[in-house]
Amino acid sequence: MKIAVLGSGNGGCAVAADFALKGHDVYLFDFEEFNENINAIMKNGGIFVDGDFVGFAEIKYAGHDIEKVITGADLIMVVRPAFGTKLFAEAAKGYIQKGQKIVICPGSCGGSLIFKKGLGLELEDESIIVSETSTLPYACRVIAAGKVHIYIKLLGGIYLAAIPSRLTENVLIDLKEVYPGIVPAKNVLQTTLQNGNPVIHPAVTLLNAALVEREKGDFYFYEEGVTPSVGRLMEAVDKERIEIGKKLEIEIIPNPVLGLIQGYMQESNYDTGYSKGRGFKGIKAQSKLDNRYMNEDVGYGLVFMSELGKQIEVETPIMDSIINIASVIMGKEYREMKSRTPETLGLSSYTVDELINVL
Amino acid sequence: MKIAVLGSGNGGCAVAADFALKGHDVYLFDFEEFNENINAIMKNGGIFVDGDFVGFAEIKYAGHDIEKVITGADLIMVVRPAFGTKLFAEAAKGYIQKGQKIVICPGSCGGSLIFKKGLGLELEDESIIVSETSTLPYACRVIAAGKVHIYIKLLGGIYLAAIPSRLTENVLIDLKEVYPGIVPAKNVLQTTLQNGNPVIHPAVTLLNAALVEREKGDFYFYEEGVTPSVGRLMEAVDKERIEIGKKLEIEIIPNPVLGLIQGYMQESNYDTGYSKGRGFKGIKAQSKLDNRYMNEDVGYGLVFMSELGKQIEVETPIMDSIINIASVIMGKEYREMKSRTPETLGLSSYTVDELINVL
Repeated sequence: MKIAVLGSGNGGCAVAADFALKGHDVYLFDFEEFNENINAIMKNGGIFVDGDFVGFAEIKYAGHDIEKVITGADLIMVVRPAFGTKLFAEAAKGYIQKGQKIVICPGSCGGSLIFKKGLGLELEDESIIVSETSTLPYACRVIAAGKVHIYIKLLGGIYLAAIPSRLTENVLIDLKEVYPGIVPAKNVLQTTLQNGNPVIHPAVTLLNAALVEREKGDFYFYEEGVTPSVGRLMEAVDKERIEIGKKLEIEIIPNPVLGLIQGYMQESNYDTGYSKGRGFKGIKAQSKLDNRYMNEDVGYGLVFMSELGKQIEVETPIMDSIINIASVIMGKEYREMKSRTPETLGLSSYTVDELINVL
Repeated sequence: MKIAVLGSGNGGCAVAADFALKGHDVYLFDFEEFNENINAIMKNGGIFVDGDFVGFAEIKYAGHDIEKVITGADLIMVVRPAFGTKLFAEAAKGYIQKGQKIVICPGSCGGSLIFKKGLGLELEDESIIVSETSTLPYACRVIAAGKVHIYIKLLGGIYLAAIPSRLTENVLIDLKEVYPGIVPAKNVLQTTLQNGNPVIHPAVTLLNAALVEREKGDFYFYEEGVTPSVGRLMEAVDKERIEIGKKLEIEIIPNPVLGLIQGYMQESNYDTGYSKGRGFKGIKAQSKLDNRYMNEDVGYGLVFMSELGKQIEVETPIMDSIINIASVIMGKEYREMKSRTPETLGLSSYTVDELINVL
């Protein structure tokens, strides 16, 4: 297959390399301001990979010509943080053809809805299948230009949903070879809610905020940063997320249980499950507070869940408290920024029943 | 004068030593379970002091006989954390005589109201003057049994209020010699609200919670623990406190301004004011989270202010968020514990005008 990968960061490089090592023709795009990996990959002719899997992945093209990357691609993998979703949709619009399948990987809070809207397509349009995964299928970091380290590739617990969800199997079939652990979700609300990052990252960051600032990230985010009190805070957030899921008839798997399934963890708890987990070893903290752990996982993730909770009458006092305090310490009014809310996803007028049935 | 000091912890030893060094006859009481300092002081015949002032303070009596300590005392200084106030009142009841003056030092959230109630006295009773200070007049720590280190003795910014407040001057006159920087407050709500600890300690603790747990207090609470984000959180809490004051026609001095007046700080800001402040140097963090920095300053201080805010219709979202998250990480439902609320102080049925006029 021709695979288009949009995004050349940690996740984009891992996805591109994984598909290429499975023998697919991979074309990689990023915007001109992100050219470090692109240039190295172009020069080397591919991506060096080490860690959980190892090799040199030949990449057919790495560059800034989105038309060349998208045209004729069977599968378009969009791999970027939440704030980039709309930008990629705008760049891709006009080049995407009927019959192409798009995977927002990961959805990072309803990314498939944002992308579809960004392409100018109605929710009901089935000519192009837009889907999303619940999580990035790797813990990975670019450790040098054109070289990605895979801490782990997830064994399972990767959910996929298309819009509408009865099209999910059409995409799943193309992903199974590279991601044998991928399973269908009920709908994109499940992939969005099953994303564990908003449960994990803000809690760890908040209770280590002074240390992040003081040490500029020079400590291990999970191994050192997760203590029993951090675990209790993650658990409290997770409980609220699970309640939101219940109201929407979606069973949300608690984070530590999913961590076992994915291979991140060896113990199913909110404390040593993280601090001793195989998939969390060696990951340094963010170098400053102004980072996606807050900007994405609070500004998009928790704000979205809290607003969704309001809409369907599920209380989220702990999420709300984290949003409030994060807003103060970051000097950003995350809730008022409305980066991702049921409204921005076009879902704010739906009742619980409509949310369950439309998607 | 004969001075009775109830409480032999950090503050009690400092108060006892300071009065004794000024030539007063000091009698020191504590409960039998707190006998370490008492025994050393009894054996040595006094308290060794170093730091901001230095000397050996002769103590007439240190022991567990409260009758001996209280009888004939001109001034009774009650020096203990918030949770101890009621216990001391119950122990003192029956021994206190008309005409005696009592100072709850510091009030730690309406301590004078609790003490007066604990003695079985009505709010209006003037036969015994119960009063409170806004703060402990020292930053101090007992560094060995019977030996207290005074980081600083406060230069000013110590507020005093009696119940009712028109009796304040009667107590002030006896304290001026030892505390030249003491000034009258409008009422006990001012002394309660002007206590800066609930603004400072929970914010620093929360954003350093994982480090407290991991390092068991082996870092400098202010010098290392206060970073710009911690400062922003303190400032947000302080703003809510100031708003509560405004509604009650009390001008609350912001913490860093008061810190300058008291001599803790050399810069009036919420960041380097603390991390570089003279009075905050060398103070280690708590050895575990389960400590008065949370149990008293959230469980009593912030819960009281938040509930008072509700009563008089001042919103306190940041205080509430800290209470929520602190409750989760401590595994204690601070709000439901109602350790100190307008209700426990007997103030919950009062309107704003009544609160202003009764006290």
